[in-house]
Amino acid sequence: MHRFFTTDAIEEGGLITLADGEAAHLTRVLRLGTGARVVVFDGRGRAAEALVESVKPALRLRVGEAVQAAPEPRVRLTLAAAVLKGEASDQVVRDAVMLGAAAIQPVISERTEMTGAALERGRRRERWERIALSSAKQCGRAVLPAIATPVDLRAFLRAPHEGLPLMLVEPQAASADRQTLSTLRDRTVPSAVTLIVGPEGGWATHEIGEAHEAGWTLLTLGARTLRADAAPQVVIAALWAIWGEI
Amino acid sequence: MHRFFTTDAIEEGGLITLADGEAAHLTRVLRLGTGARVVVFDGRGRAAEALVESVKPALRLRVGEAVQAAPEPRVRLTLAAAVLKGEASDQVVRDAVMLGAAAIQPVISERTEMTGAALERGRRRERWERIALSSAKQCGRAVLPAIATPVDLRAFLRAPHEGLPLMLVEPQAASADRQTLSTLRDRTVPSAVTLIVGPEGGWATHEIGEAHEAGWTLLTLGARTLRADAAPQVVIAALWAIWGEI
Repeated sequence: MHRFFTTDAIEEGGLITLADGEAAHLTRVLRLGTGARVVVFDGRGRAAEALVESVKPALRLRVGEAVQAAPEPRVRLTLAAAVLKGEASDQVVRDAVMLGAAAIQPVISERTEMTGAALERGRRRERWERIALSSAKQCGRAVLPAIATPVDLRAFLRAPHEGLPLMLVEPQAASADRQTLSTLRDRTVPSAVTLIVGPEGGWATHEIGEAHEAGWTLLTLGARTLRADAAPQVVIAALWAIWGEI
Repeated sequence: MHRFFTTDAIEEGGLITLADGEAAHLTRVLRLGTGARVVVFDGRGRAAEALVESVKPALRLRVGEAVQAAPEPRVRLTLAAAVLKGEASDQVVRDAVMLGAAAIQPVISERTEMTGAALERGRRRERWERIALSSAKQCGRAVLPAIATPVDLRAFLRAPHEGLPLMLVEPQAASADRQTLSTLRDRTVPSAVTLIVGPEGGWATHEIGEAHEAGWTLLTLGARTLRADAAPQVVIAALWAIWGEI
């Protein structure tokens, strides 16, 4: 069944509507009409069957029984991902949502090739929100991860963060105090983790030093060099594997 | 330093040349000339520094000291990936090479939308070989995984295979005998694994049955639905995590 996001409260027997994009998808793209059965979800964990009661003058859906959505990970993961060149961050957002990230924080680091102003002009955050929604629909999640406004790495490193603070660093990175997955494997599974992953070309050396000073755990994943657009997905899958999430 | 693939034997002090594509990359794309220092690798695990001794009339490189390439996984992994729509398999090949796959076997399953004949006409295998080479160069491997000729799933399931036989199945797949990562975690790390991953739309039910009958272990990765183009990378990363490869 097709899945649609709603900002309305989902309560059995209640009437809800859809925002413009979702409504257009239902009526114009999928050409569903009165009587169609769909699934609606509120982005905060609730999903239910729904029946299209009217399309004109307004789209209205009657909420039915709750349905089971894809389970959320027990570990709440915030991905803080350096913004990549061109549209490469699109894949990062899509894959992080697929793998169950709870929130995504775009980060501007020294080697990020775009400024916050350029990202804002390009309405990049809105684009990532659309991608996150589409990925949540595709993989059956009822939670829609928030995409935060891009921030500078330095500010982010010093701001309060949720859970275990991890920064992925390249195997070549010169740093005293790197941890591997096996050190994490021997610790208790955290209830939350904030994971920072770098841009093409990696972190500047001083950025790694600043993270270390600010208390972030520096994590390396073996000796392989991972492409920047693939690294977040690989590290999340690896963390899920050792924490029993997949 | 830039890295080039050669089919010549790499021996310190020896002279080697490069095949057309690699030679063009060195001379025309990167515009390197006599005296340039590069790294060459033979695709079978050897890599060495090399000095460009001449460009015209023929490109010749003098082999220098051996260099350390990205380490190969201790587990030899063959990825048997169902061919995906359009160019989606390109990413599967690129990521599998990045993650250290030893060989890639394209597979045609019931829901694959292309025939072996169409793949051959489109010279698809040759395309994937170029992608594998480019990925091996980018991630510093000295081993170039072979891309086998696409085969039908049924034939592949019954043919001899190397190591632990794993087939990734969707969490929804009806099947009696599914294993999870945690069951693999409790077993000895295998020396080799052959991993089959399905197409968009997943396996047909009878395909899962045939794999099970032929002795393949059916593996599910949590309850999340993974996109077909991302699934191989996620499962390889998860296996590497539990087998201590990353």
